[in-house]
Amino acid sequence: MSKISISEKFNLFTEEWTPKIIAETNGQLVKIAKGSGELVWHRHENEDELFIVFKGHLTLQLRDGNIELGVGDMYVVPKGVEHCPLAEADTHFMMIEPSSTEHTGKLDLNVTVSIENQEWI
Amino acid sequence: MSKISISEKFNLFTEEWTPKIIAETNGQLVKIAKGSGELVWHRHENEDELFIVFKGHLTLQLRDGNIELGVGDMYVVPKGVEHCPLAEADTHFMMIEPSSTEHTGKLDLNVTVSIENQEWI
Repeated sequence: MSKISISEKFNLFTEEWTPKIIAETNGQLVKIAKGSGELVWHRHENEDELFIVFKGHLTLQLRDGNIELGVGDMYVVPKGVEHCPLAEADTHFMMIEPSSTEHTGKLDLNVTVSIENQEWI
Repeated sequence: MSKISISEKFNLFTEEWTPKIIAETNGQLVKIAKGSGELVWHRHENEDELFIVFKGHLTLQLRDGNIELGVGDMYVVPKGVEHCPLAEADTHFMMIEPSSTEHTGKLDLNVTVSIENQEWI
């Protein structure tokens, strides 16, 4: 394995709300994604989900309040906690989560990218 | 839990080669550390170790070559792979690793910070 430049990886795609896998560690996948606007309310029953913002601003809407993440901020959404990401235009962020984590939890929507369709870059 | 500002967490300590824990996710700990110079050759038999550099330059010396990490670069040292971190002055980096990960593997040295002495900040 070579070193990974996170910014170079962000330059390899343009799709929004489409996680790209850049590394694996201890059964968890390191993914990066771009987003604008709102994804969808969902929860991961068995997986915590770590977010780190690299560009823009990401609001993690939770049922009991919003978590506001600017560049260099992180947050772990605990397993079972419903959340809905809301991003400023062209926000870039990282997620680290077990390989079993479904993109939009139990929901299979137009915006959903299934595990098998999440691409390594 | 509130959001975590990674840069604010780095402002909370000055010790070098002394991992501080800032979050837990899926049984893994998110740690940050500062380093200058060389730590020690060691390996983690059962744990992959993810590094992301936030300031300075970190060389991960491996037995078959060096991995050079600048700001925004990451690398996963696979379990069982011997490595020795070497940092430019005042380098800041993050590690994500299982909570079972010993600081310097099986070695217990003056520089070793045992799991029970790794502080949450």
